[in-house]
Amino acid sequence: MTYCVAVRLDSGMIFASDSRTNAGVDQIATFSKMRVYEKNEDRLIVVLSSGNLGITQGVINLLDRHKNAEEGETTIWNVDSMYDAAAIVGEALREMQRRDGTFLTQGNVDAGASLIVGGQIKGEATRLFHVYAQGNFIEALGDTPYFQLGESKYGKPILDRVVTPSTPQKEAAKCVLISFDSTMKSNISVGLPIDMLWYPRDSLRVGLQQRIREGDPYFTMLRSRWGGGLRRVFAELPDPDWLE
Amino acid sequence: MTYCVAVRLDSGMIFASDSRTNAGVDQIATFSKMRVYEKNEDRLIVVLSSGNLGITQGVINLLDRHKNAEEGETTIWNVDSMYDAAAIVGEALREMQRRDGTFLTQGNVDAGASLIVGGQIKGEATRLFHVYAQGNFIEALGDTPYFQLGESKYGKPILDRVVTPSTPQKEAAKCVLISFDSTMKSNISVGLPIDMLWYPRDSLRVGLQQRIREGDPYFTMLRSRWGGGLRRVFAELPDPDWLE
Repeated sequence: MTYCVAVRLDSGMIFASDSRTNAGVDQIATFSKMRVYEKNEDRLIVVLSSGNLGITQGVINLLDRHKNAEEGETTIWNVDSMYDAAAIVGEALREMQRRDGTFLTQGNVDAGASLIVGGQIKGEATRLFHVYAQGNFIEALGDTPYFQLGESKYGKPILDRVVTPSTPQKEAAKCVLISFDSTMKSNISVGLPIDMLWYPRDSLRVGLQQRIREGDPYFTMLRSRWGGGLRRVFAELPDPDWLE
Repeated sequence: MTYCVAVRLDSGMIFASDSRTNAGVDQIATFSKMRVYEKNEDRLIVVLSSGNLGITQGVINLLDRHKNAEEGETTIWNVDSMYDAAAIVGEALREMQRRDGTFLTQGNVDAGASLIVGGQIKGEATRLFHVYAQGNFIEALGDTPYFQLGESKYGKPILDRVVTPSTPQKEAAKCVLISFDSTMKSNISVGLPIDMLWYPRDSLRVGLQQRIREGDPYFTMLRSRWGGGLRRVFAELPDPDWLE
């Protein structure tokens, strides 16, 4: 399983992904699910992925090859809109499905995969897209400041309670990490390390990228104090008086 | 969608179910998903249901007819173990699937349904079972003090943090209601009223049964103070220092 979150704030964007993959409980490995395409002062595009690892690695591989594309070809490096970047990712996903999908389905393997594509291309605002398994996609607009991939339900309530476009980035990062804590607590197939990236609006380059590993002091403190705080709030609430 | 929880405590059992059913967003109705079979000083059996409403109503209908069963027939009123009661419910579910399942599947309608069966029969301890869509079932033993049905993920983290078999009943009831709050906040197809039942161990009768409706003062207070408390705990946690 996977858990990824991308948040679009007024001040910039936060991307986060876990890195555990599993094919059965006896085949667990660590793979980054975040890929960054950065061309200084021109574009910063982040792709988060979930689902069948062969399919998503194939998608990333197709995107990586854009480096060596022939002149005139439309690539992730020359499209002038994030909308077109999302369409390119969707097309790469369809290509992988055409190549491997039928074989996986025949073997009763789930070929499903979906991705988040976000960032900024010079001349546009920051934009955030969710690319579905069929290669179609939607954009986060207005009141929808975030998208999730994978095991999304456990970590959604805290995002809904806290994050709006005007939330300061530090607070939003804290909220994203608590959302990861809730998810990892309930689903052991989501695990550390967490890859986290902060993109400051209009900077057209990575603001900060870091990997949160087991024993990370801030995340450890956050997990313990959040759990303790929840239990404290719970204890302070009055019991129902209709029960003896 | 549905949300149901049943908790087995040292002191007794709590059952709770929402009552919203929907077949598309334009067909929403209120149906109780809790059925109680009570024979004073002999047995108290509670059935919670989720899934295809035609199927689960059919199951309940079959169980209700046990009232008029011929002598010698095995019914929910004369089995001497909760294990057999769970088997009867599983068998009723299979009978409904035999009757309607194929037709529903042909019409691309999800025929899935699952139930919780819990309570106590004289001579046994309290017992709690989860009956799956295929009619097989498992029992809550040892460290598993609760089962959920339906939209279970949003409301699971708080149950995991708080409820153990030794949790006092008032505290467990409070926790179950907060679990409902988290679920209803994230999934509008789970809705009030909540049917709640408290069964005190070895009493062999309903301890308390009540319906929590819109505007219920205790539940309203709980929702507002829980949300406020979460935001307070969140605000008190330090921001990450690695982000400007």
